[in-house]
Amino acid sequence: MKIDILTLFPEMFQIFNQSIIKRAQENNLISIKAHDIREYSTNKHKKVDDYPYGGGAGMVMTPQPIIEAIRNVKKNNKGMVIFLGPRGETFNSEMSKKLSDEKELIFVCGHYEGIDERIYKHIDMEISLGDFILTGGEMACIPVVDSICRFVPGVLKTSESYEDESFYEGLLEFPQYTRPEIFENERVPEILLSGHHENIKNWRRRKSLELTKNKRPDLFSKVKLSKKDKKLLGN
Amino acid sequence: MKIDILTLFPEMFQIFNQSIIKRAQENNLISIKAHDIREYSTNKHKKVDDYPYGGGAGMVMTPQPIIEAIRNVKKNNKGMVIFLGPRGETFNSEMSKKLSDEKELIFVCGHYEGIDERIYKHIDMEISLGDFILTGGEMACIPVVDSICRFVPGVLKTSESYEDESFYEGLLEFPQYTRPEIFENERVPEILLSGHHENIKNWRRRKSLELTKNKRPDLFSKVKLSKKDKKLLGN
Repeated sequence: MKIDILTLFPEMFQIFNQSIIKRAQENNLISIKAHDIREYSTNKHKKVDDYPYGGGAGMVMTPQPIIEAIRNVKKNNKGMVIFLGPRGETFNSEMSKKLSDEKELIFVCGHYEGIDERIYKHIDMEISLGDFILTGGEMACIPVVDSICRFVPGVLKTSESYEDESFYEGLLEFPQYTRPEIFENERVPEILLSGHHENIKNWRRRKSLELTKNKRPDLFSKVKLSKKDKKLLGN
Repeated sequence: MKIDILTLFPEMFQIFNQSIIKRAQENNLISIKAHDIREYSTNKHKKVDDYPYGGGAGMVMTPQPIIEAIRNVKKNNKGMVIFLGPRGETFNSEMSKKLSDEKELIFVCGHYEGIDERIYKHIDMEISLGDFILTGGEMACIPVVDSICRFVPGVLKTSESYEDESFYEGLLEFPQYTRPEIFENERVPEILLSGHHENIKNWRRRKSLELTKNKRPDLFSKVKLSKKDKKLLGN
């Protein structure tokens, strides 16, 4: 997957030169390139923002540099142009999985008080990270790109597979335990040491259902419980 | 505000050495320090993860290094210990504002398949960024810390003030326009050039209400409309 990111702070994306996403880039599974919007400004001072018409606090990003940057990147990337902003649909696992099927994507990060409204017609999709405000779109772009890349086949090793993870099947993950068996007087639950696969599977399913029910009733209400699930929950 | 972050990837937090958060640190309004969990491992190979009891894919973070790191950081930071994970309440603007009133905060970032369940009793609060999975807690910690710091008094210059922004009063922000007045045949709306403050204010309020109604009906349904709002919307 090829990802181009338009931003005023390309250095922020050095975060992808670490850990799992670094390895995925080294293995040519994904390529992430950040482009400096400022370089596309035709203003002699490379200005990218200006005061809002009609008054008000803050600066607004001018249309020219962003639109020029989009046009330039589009020469080598035929993907959707995605803007990180509050008007978009809230990002979730389903959206992430869907976008991971794309071969190319372009992300645009706003900064300051927002972008000139005339830029929106050059945007194909807007994604909101959630109902909160950040200092810049970069802070939303990073987790969104990370989550999408994670779904790209091969990015996770089989041993990191995502099939018993939170939000898979709409449930939180069951509690995990690792060595040592006793840590500061707390023991790993007996059942996990039993070697009895069927019992372990049932225990984990029950814990997963219980956790979701207690911690995320909103998610739980959408889960289709099987007969066995109901039995595990003691209903 | 003093923020300590426990992570296996402290370099990822160099992102806060840029832009607004960098300036806030230089002005001693906030201090952000990332600590490497691996340094607290008593294992001779500085191991921090191990296979899950009961089998399954992936590695689980062991209790010792994280708990030791928490204890160590707590010597100089009396703040809440916040874990970034899917069981937590979903982060939002209100939570962000509330946490920005704290003097000290400690964040713990998980990685791999999760953390040993016995670590949870050392955690005061769990925050979820949203219903999606990331390669590590760092990717959630970054926007959460950014959003909280943004509310710390003085971090934004008055000219960047957040009072007419999206999610303030539960509405999306009105459309913004800046120079030039005509860009590729598209004009800035006449009213914004009129200099008539009351009309501009009403236009912006109407646009803000309309945008929220169209793009985020879920937010709009919670807004208490004034008589004037209803009139602006033509009801």
